[in-house]
Amino acid sequence: MVKTAVILAAGLGSRLGQKIKDKPKGFLVIDEMPIIEMSICKLIEAGIDKIIMGTGHLKEVYERLAVKYPQIKCVYNKQYQTTESMYTLYNLRDYISDDFILLESDLIYDKVALKILLHHSMPDVILAGELTHSSDEIFLETNKNHFLVNMSKKEEQLKNIDAELVGITKISYPTFKKMCTYAETVFDSNAKLDYERTLVGISKNVDIYVNKLKDFVWCEIDDENHLRRAIQEIYPMIKVRETVKPPIKRNILLNPGPATTTDRVKYAQVVPDICPREKEFGHVMQFVSTELTRLVADPKEYTTILLGGSGTAAIEAILSSVIDQAFILIINNGAYGRRMCQIAAVYGLNYIEYKSPIDNIIDLKALEAVIQDGYRIISHLAIVHNETTTGLLNDIESVGNLCRKHHIQLIVDAVSSFAAIPIDMRRMNISYLAASSNKNIQGMAGVSFVIAHKGKLESAKNVKPRNFYLHLYSQYKYFLETHQMRFTPPVQTLYALKQAIIETKQEGIKERYERYSRAWEVLMKGIARLGLTHLVNKYHHSKIITAIIEPHSMNYDFNEMHDYFYSKGVTIYPGKLEEMNTFRVANIGDITYKDIEYFVELLEQYLKGIGYIK
Amino acid sequence: MVKTAVILAAGLGSRLGQKIKDKPKGFLVIDEMPIIEMSICKLIEAGIDKIIMGTGHLKEVYERLAVKYPQIKCVYNKQYQTTESMYTLYNLRDYISDDFILLESDLIYDKVALKILLHHSMPDVILAGELTHSSDEIFLETNKNHFLVNMSKKEEQLKNIDAELVGITKISYPTFKKMCTYAETVFDSNAKLDYERTLVGISKNVDIYVNKLKDFVWCEIDDENHLRRAIQEIYPMIKVRETVKPPIKRNILLNPGPATTTDRVKYAQVVPDICPREKEFGHVMQFVSTELTRLVADPKEYTTILLGGSGTAAIEAILSSVIDQAFILIINNGAYGRRMCQIAAVYGLNYIEYKSPIDNIIDLKALEAVIQDGYRIISHLAIVHNETTTGLLNDIESVGNLCRKHHIQLIVDAVSSFAAIPIDMRRMNISYLAASSNKNIQGMAGVSFVIAHKGKLESAKNVKPRNFYLHLYSQYKYFLETHQMRFTPPVQTLYALKQAIIETKQEGIKERYERYSRAWEVLMKGIARLGLTHLVNKYHHSKIITAIIEPHSMNYDFNEMHDYFYSKGVTIYPGKLEEMNTFRVANIGDITYKDIEYFVELLEQYLKGIGYIK
Repeated sequence: MVKTAVILAAGLGSRLGQKIKDKPKGFLVIDEMPIIEMSICKLIEAGIDKIIMGTGHLKEVYERLAVKYPQIKCVYNKQYQTTESMYTLYNLRDYISDDFILLESDLIYDKVALKILLHHSMPDVILAGELTHSSDEIFLETNKNHFLVNMSKKEEQLKNIDAELVGITKISYPTFKKMCTYAETVFDSNAKLDYERTLVGISKNVDIYVNKLKDFVWCEIDDENHLRRAIQEIYPMIKVRETVKPPIKRNILLNPGPATTTDRVKYAQVVPDICPREKEFGHVMQFVSTELTRLVADPKEYTTILLGGSGTAAIEAILSSVIDQAFILIINNGAYGRRMCQIAAVYGLNYIEYKSPIDNIIDLKALEAVIQDGYRIISHLAIVHNETTTGLLNDIESVGNLCRKHHIQLIVDAVSSFAAIPIDMRRMNISYLAASSNKNIQGMAGVSFVIAHKGKLESAKNVKPRNFYLHLYSQYKYFLETHQMRFTPPVQTLYALKQAIIETKQEGIKERYERYSRAWEVLMKGIARLGLTHLVNKYHHSKIITAIIEPHSMNYDFNEMHDYFYSKGVTIYPGKLEEMNTFRVANIGDITYKDIEYFVELLEQYLKGIGYIK
Repeated sequence: MVKTAVILAAGLGSRLGQKIKDKPKGFLVIDEMPIIEMSICKLIEAGIDKIIMGTGHLKEVYERLAVKYPQIKCVYNKQYQTTESMYTLYNLRDYISDDFILLESDLIYDKVALKILLHHSMPDVILAGELTHSSDEIFLETNKNHFLVNMSKKEEQLKNIDAELVGITKISYPTFKKMCTYAETVFDSNAKLDYERTLVGISKNVDIYVNKLKDFVWCEIDDENHLRRAIQEIYPMIKVRETVKPPIKRNILLNPGPATTTDRVKYAQVVPDICPREKEFGHVMQFVSTELTRLVADPKEYTTILLGGSGTAAIEAILSSVIDQAFILIINNGAYGRRMCQIAAVYGLNYIEYKSPIDNIIDLKALEAVIQDGYRIISHLAIVHNETTTGLLNDIESVGNLCRKHHIQLIVDAVSSFAAIPIDMRRMNISYLAASSNKNIQGMAGVSFVIAHKGKLESAKNVKPRNFYLHLYSQYKYFLETHQMRFTPPVQTLYALKQAIIETKQEGIKERYERYSRAWEVLMKGIARLGLTHLVNKYHHSKIITAIIEPHSMNYDFNEMHDYFYSKGVTIYPGKLEEMNTFRVANIGDITYKDIEYFVELLEQYLKGIGYIK
């Protein structure tokens, strides 16, 4: 395979005037990168490991680039002002010892061009495109076997024009030597020989194949019209074609988050390195913060505080930061309610644990009675929205109304409902809500956040801090003042979260919940058909995660079933209840009801295999 | 551009015997993916949005695949047992309405093939490769214009053999119709017509170009020999060629972390979705944990506890989890020493702040005097290794010896030294060390970790927990027992960290520090030449981060200078000292001394611009 490229970069680019000033043409910047650097990246990606640049005008700028890319060797053409491209190429003869790809420095092109030349079975190949009518093009004339006969900027000098020179050519070493010999005979009378004329000159003795491509996107940039066309039309097309990322093996995650994500979200993590204290990154976090708020509240009244950590970190940030001396009433009807009690206990908060059945609705009257008992001042009430242990959906709106009546601030653990089940913080009277980046928002794990009522948050300022990293008010204030996180945030996870938010908004939360619900209905019908039951009835069910009662069978084994599913690309989740043997299926993430049909089909096979059904 | 693909997938694959059992040939699995699914991913990536599969034998397996990829439409050839590939293709005639790429189902190939066909200027193109001598190949005979004349498995039936059929062909719609017409005339006498014979049949009337590729990698899998060759030779070559990832714009980060990373580390974040409670992910964390330990200690005696959070989270995890009632002595000679005092204060620990000059070594005698004052029992001493504020390197080995003498456990904040400056925890008598994923280890931000002496950690079990998320012993114990993190970890950041560790081990810590030091020497010479000075002298300098005294000039403005550097792809960092105006340069990450030369060159230009130097 060809491993060498030669770039002709000695030209003056005088027709571009003020657009480039003290830079050679190759340093025209499109989308934050000089076009020559784009070309170099494409060459390296295609397997080229030696890039020889023939320089002249402003050679030091290219030499700078050679520091960044050790593959580059610059060779200066001292006579660049009085010679043309063939002399620059001839000047490299001591450095060229093999076949090579020859490129002009002022090109932008779809990188597929390089692969096509590298895999071409013929040794000398000129890449040609369809006619562009862009002015200043070089037309190609070929014989019926597609070998070069002539080329010229003047149409009238040629017969049978149907292709245009791109400026990327594969040249074998023997042909290069013939070019040099030819040039030596011409230089005496004409130093301004170009490489195109030289190819025509030797074409009587050498077969140079003209490979015309269909639908190929490229342009040369010689003047301001070309530049405008490059920026407005050509570069965007190249970008679309090249940024197709290889699809990533798709797994169907039916665990309760991290969930199945789109490939776009996965690739959003791959960004140039950035210091998270830069303004540019501040804008990313500001976007994330504002748009997360907007999903459940008005950003004028509410704000999102980002944290590096899991959903539990966000819950702990609230509980440890906003409760003062008064009591917090915590509703425990599953593992995540219990966890809030554990956090309250570890910080020595005054808390009341209110136990409620794990599989049924909260008795609001009994709850109100506790609030009204009169012995204790209750300032806050904490509740889980969708209890991940069971799929029980707590009626936070009714609890919110109760809190309004008794002047209690409501804290909601929405980790497994946020971005799926519609929430309106103002209407539901929620002061603080916690969630994370890796569940229904369909991003990557590593970021959690608290959405808070600004007024309530301000009044929590005076609560004595109980920790450092998770102190909510400090984190809020610091971001407000600096647009930075207090501590180094998970940079790439935030880029992925930004993409996930964009996709959430495109789909719509209501629509996402409908998609999840449809998948859940398929799950319900499926397990019923297979003779299985689940814990929470549909009237109080989140339709997001379901605790399915394990089949009564001697042959049943959760781990075996799990491994069976896993081998088929499906991940299921164990139960978390002491009271009952269950396993769990979460129908969240970038999945559809069809994936649940697949799950049911596999479950049927497994249950048949163990003899539970026939 | 062609948007349709047709896959012929009705065959029996009978020569593969037990290798596939109840699956069609396309479902042979290589590297965890069925070969047909690889092919489908490549088609989608190349811009194909409609894939028509002609099925027969075990059609339901393909129909299953069509659920996963909505681009697929399966069409069943009921007579698959008595017909051949042309009948399967003919059977699709109602679904084909445009030009298409025709593929066999049992191929593995370099995806470049698809782009080459899509960009080919001719409408009907057979892809051909060099002769493989793999047995069972189909040879091609062409005329001098490379158009198809004949093809056969029998060499003796052809003249001028120099290419082999790959099994990927571009067919225009008019040509497809001619194939159908031709087939209709043959089917009556021969239902077992294949598509190759049909192409030869129409080639007298249609020009079908045979495009022979050089260095093209592919194979068909018809029997067990083919399969062995596919797994051992062909697939690995395809994988190497295809996994070249587009280079990412390189920024030179001279802030004190997150640092410049390799593209390999960036791409390591892109993995199939996985539940972090899976065994497979447990192995990733186990690798990360053990190998991080190994960089500074023997994993038999020491262990690494992973956390989702920044370096500060790891420091807080230690301070809040291991100190009981006795005192901790904290050395404060910079912002990070001060931060440890703040953390101790917020938790109400008994702590002594020992202030030491920010730009000079610690007076060990004075320190020992504090330890020996007799009023307080000191159980722990905390120190920053490399103080990021100034670049002062504290002599932790001497402090460790002092701790040994007085039976004090040493806690080291190694956030900005770990993986650059060699550390030996046992020799230096360090009980706990904190660091993070995004500095000298050259990974992504989001993970921090504590490396602890196991015995000391076990004895911290009885300290009353002061928080939940950052409780060190719980995090340790849970991972030990389950190979899971207690709370959802930053999954993708851990994959990147794994890659970063591999690269750290490849380079070696000593060698990495030499690379950093060489860059630092260039920095020192450079700023001296430009008339600037820095804070800490070289004998106590970490050679990792340098606080440079700001130039005395009316025209100097840090933000302007920062923006100047930023526009050139270089990020510098502000100072953090109250005592003195400084800015900071950290020579860490995937950079070399050449990048620092570039930095010095830019600095010179900036200083000239403001008239500080001439």
